[in-house]
Amino acid sequence: MSTAHAIENLRAALACLPGVGPKSAQRMAYYLIERDRQGARAIASALNHALDSIQHCRRCNNLSETELCTLCSSASRKHSQLCIVETPADLEAIEQTGSYKGCYFVLMGTISPLDGIGPDNLGIDRLLEVLDEFEIEEIILATNLTVEGETTAEYLTDLLTGKDTIKDIKLTRIARGVPVGGELEYIDRNTVARAIDERRKV
Amino acid sequence: MSTAHAIENLRAALACLPGVGPKSAQRMAYYLIERDRQGARAIASALNHALDSIQHCRRCNNLSETELCTLCSSASRKHSQLCIVETPADLEAIEQTGSYKGCYFVLMGTISPLDGIGPDNLGIDRLLEVLDEFEIEEIILATNLTVEGETTAEYLTDLLTGKDTIKDIKLTRIARGVPVGGELEYIDRNTVARAIDERRKV
Repeated sequence: MSTAHAIENLRAALACLPGVGPKSAQRMAYYLIERDRQGARAIASALNHALDSIQHCRRCNNLSETELCTLCSSASRKHSQLCIVETPADLEAIEQTGSYKGCYFVLMGTISPLDGIGPDNLGIDRLLEVLDEFEIEEIILATNLTVEGETTAEYLTDLLTGKDTIKDIKLTRIARGVPVGGELEYIDRNTVARAIDERRKV
Repeated sequence: MSTAHAIENLRAALACLPGVGPKSAQRMAYYLIERDRQGARAIASALNHALDSIQHCRRCNNLSETELCTLCSSASRKHSQLCIVETPADLEAIEQTGSYKGCYFVLMGTISPLDGIGPDNLGIDRLLEVLDEFEIEEIILATNLTVEGETTAEYLTDLLTGKDTIKDIKLTRIARGVPVGGELEYIDRNTVARAIDERRKV
């Protein structure tokens, strides 16, 4: 082998990143060692720090450095509204709109039988505890509009409407329709059909 | 900010990787912390290990864990042949063919005025020392066939042919032409022109 063992090792480790194949991993390894040693140290220390400090928020199940995350411990959020999302990135996408002021629950995944992920692998027990513990008035199902996301939303709808304790909670789903700026001509048929079926009174 | 500080930090650190933008960095950060903590530890420790152990080989300037890399210290290589390449990845590409048995010199870059890289930023002093120190019979210029690579090859040709001490050294350039499996119809005009100009006797 002509490559140094440490580089070979680094290349193999980087190849576990999502979306990074062997060629990109090699490029990254050489780049970090040859061009950006400071950046490389920063990645290593950020990784170790995150691994040591990140846990799940006791209430919303999101990644957090504290037992209760900043959102859940904020007095300015509406604690009676609970928006259920799949991942921290989805939460982030909603936060960036600035239009939602309630709280969240992060499932950390979706029901996906093909990947072996069933309801038991999601934080659903935790969710039920949260619903018992806090006074929730509305649950917004904000899982993605993919097959897995829809399945998860349907599963949650069945589960939650079946519970006596939470029958007074309003259960909603994010709107489906034509995206802002979208032209009907170029939007897929299913979306257009949905947009017509779920039309709103103006 | 709704995201944990440690995750934000990690995302910023990962965004310095080549070809990784803010969205990919975020995806990587969440993936590592949520799905592959073992992989994350492996990356951190491989990075630290590589940073601590990797230096430049005293002879070929390639990345190496030892003062003299495995290729340069191997008795089975032809030490009188020196192939000059731009990067460790190029060296690797030649090694993978298995058809070259000589030694290398890695410039760790090319002359690229637009990026502010001149001859002084490449390991050319080191190269001249190597030529003085070892008995070299042939130098193969294997920089890429890009504008920068060609400029570097021309610069090296001028420099080396001007030196008295190395006037007996055979200086060659890797062949330009139609790639194996290539069809003339689909190859760019410059390459076809080169392939005809530089035709070989069969």
